[in-house]
Amino acid sequence: MGQPLPGNVRLPSAPPGRKRSDSVGFAIVGLGGYALNQMMPRFEQAERAHIAAIVSGNPEKLRRVGDAYGVAEDARYSYEAFEKIASDDRIDAVYIVLPTGLHAEWAIRAFAAGKHVLCEKPMALSSADCERMIAASRRADRKLMIAYRSHFEPYNLEAMKLMQQKAAGEIRLVRTEQSYRMGPTSPSENWRTSRALAGGGPLEDFGIYGLQSALYLTGEMPESISATTFRPAGDARFAEIFAHVSSQWRFPSGAVAQLVTSYDSAGTNFAHVRGTLGALIMDPATSYSGQKMRLEGQNTRDLSPGDPAVQFAGQLNNFTDAVRDGATIRTPGEMGLRDLRLIEAIYASAEAGRTVRLAPDGRRRS
Amino acid sequence: MGQPLPGNVRLPSAPPGRKRSDSVGFAIVGLGGYALNQMMPRFEQAERAHIAAIVSGNPEKLRRVGDAYGVAEDARYSYEAFEKIASDDRIDAVYIVLPTGLHAEWAIRAFAAGKHVLCEKPMALSSADCERMIAASRRADRKLMIAYRSHFEPYNLEAMKLMQQKAAGEIRLVRTEQSYRMGPTSPSENWRTSRALAGGGPLEDFGIYGLQSALYLTGEMPESISATTFRPAGDARFAEIFAHVSSQWRFPSGAVAQLVTSYDSAGTNFAHVRGTLGALIMDPATSYSGQKMRLEGQNTRDLSPGDPAVQFAGQLNNFTDAVRDGATIRTPGEMGLRDLRLIEAIYASAEAGRTVRLAPDGRRRS
Repeated sequence: MGQPLPGNVRLPSAPPGRKRSDSVGFAIVGLGGYALNQMMPRFEQAERAHIAAIVSGNPEKLRRVGDAYGVAEDARYSYEAFEKIASDDRIDAVYIVLPTGLHAEWAIRAFAAGKHVLCEKPMALSSADCERMIAASRRADRKLMIAYRSHFEPYNLEAMKLMQQKAAGEIRLVRTEQSYRMGPTSPSENWRTSRALAGGGPLEDFGIYGLQSALYLTGEMPESISATTFRPAGDARFAEIFAHVSSQWRFPSGAVAQLVTSYDSAGTNFAHVRGTLGALIMDPATSYSGQKMRLEGQNTRDLSPGDPAVQFAGQLNNFTDAVRDGATIRTPGEMGLRDLRLIEAIYASAEAGRTVRLAPDGRRRS
Repeated sequence: MGQPLPGNVRLPSAPPGRKRSDSVGFAIVGLGGYALNQMMPRFEQAERAHIAAIVSGNPEKLRRVGDAYGVAEDARYSYEAFEKIASDDRIDAVYIVLPTGLHAEWAIRAFAAGKHVLCEKPMALSSADCERMIAASRRADRKLMIAYRSHFEPYNLEAMKLMQQKAAGEIRLVRTEQSYRMGPTSPSENWRTSRALAGGGPLEDFGIYGLQSALYLTGEMPESISATTFRPAGDARFAEIFAHVSSQWRFPSGAVAQLVTSYDSAGTNFAHVRGTLGALIMDPATSYSGQKMRLEGQNTRDLSPGDPAVQFAGQLNNFTDAVRDGATIRTPGEMGLRDLRLIEAIYASAEAGRTVRLAPDGRRRS
């Protein structure tokens, strides 16, 4: 927030066309790189979602982005004026694309203003905040969805289906890694290195894709987790967050997941499943685009189930179907809460240096 | 023992030639597939090691193998007659290639007969047995070496050197897997599935290569281990042993190792190191031959440091140099003992479902 608009931002050359009359109007809260370069341009492909308002602390951003997207001048809000959205009928829903540490506060404000909420992952930095968000959603009788885009992405959907069909047999091992090497920075320069805004760091940022993969590929919740974290001394990038987070999970079926995520390792993003009849190799597994998938076994083959880019519009469609028709949200607040419990279990295990046992809902048993 | 000689055994077409006068005479104890197909043919390449005697419970094997290797008829021993090797001056050393559960007994018998011992890995099935073997070696004042062939194999030697030189920077992660799918069998058909002879199964058999890699690539001992094991119900292969063994280690430097080994998964044998400056990919990592190695980073390159097959002769040369010249054994009984402590820690962690803490010598602290 408050940063100048970077030069490499992708803005539409002409404002988007009009949508059908039941299109859901969104207020985009937070105009960072992901909102500007990935999500906002994809509203065009959504059936009935449009950008009705934007919220930012940067007047220059409000002006340039508002103009490019044809957002009415009186629908460009500062954070201070956010509460006024309550009486703005152009806005049905709020899409929260802020640093994670701000999700809970702004989701609860959005519910207080009577709006539905689509919230970026991770849902928040604590399970307690997730529970507050779910409670606020229920009190306001408004929808809450977490933007887990892989649930709308053809490769990951096909992988879920294949694993349910036991295409690799009984799953015995899931191995995931999401890593990249972060350039020199510090908490004051980059919110992703600030504990207050980003929690432990890489696990919340993209390790959560591996965490999610381990869950939706096995279809199970872990019964125990042992984890370890590391940060090098004297490195400003890791003054507040971890450089590496590794964990090993045991599922009730006997399957094991080994997860790694890092901000200080060569770039990689994979999920491997090894089963009694073969293996599923997803590499890259959960990118914005460029996914690759290979099923190995008796009938080894590469799979190309569709364009990964549809994940953005698919996510919006599920949300607007829920808002307009009461459709079931595939990635509800309860899923975000579940994942925060697992993230907390990972950090608790690492801090105590011992294995943590979990109940089926992800709460710690020991 | 006592099984017929299989048809696919590799026997020399002519007996090996004479060696120099200070060549060390070995009695090969156990004429199984590894001895016959891998190790015995490689004596030819060793500088001063020769097969002076063979020990087997199978008269047909003694005859055919003895004839092929030019072993004198009175140097073909049954197990019952083993003690007579004490007065056979042609025999300087015993190479124990028996099922693991028999290593301790026959090593101690060999020391009692006044012979040096080269023993296949793993050293034994318990650290207590390893300690008995070391004590017997000291009492007899005879050498004891564990046949960890990777310590004499050019790819793994180059990998150790590269990691010591920090060619991938500070090591943060080692990931290994040694797996294959075992065909239908049972403990009565295949000693590798018998708990009494093979311990927990895949970890002792080839997972130990991953365990060793994690140690010699990092140059550290783990300070904690959390592990999990699994065996499917109603599968005769796994009536007594585990199908899968997974573990996660934490080293004092903060590096992590994630190890997997399985008898019920598609064949693979790799070791990956990820460091602050790059990665080392060894795949296959510790085979008899066919090793591949790639160093990734600022100067990504494939490395081919030499023919892996020299590992067999190299191992014999180190042993005979120790016997004849007092050279230091690179893979002594103490290394075998250390590794059994780690194997015991892995099983203890899996059984208790908790993280186990280790002293620098591998003994369990908790």
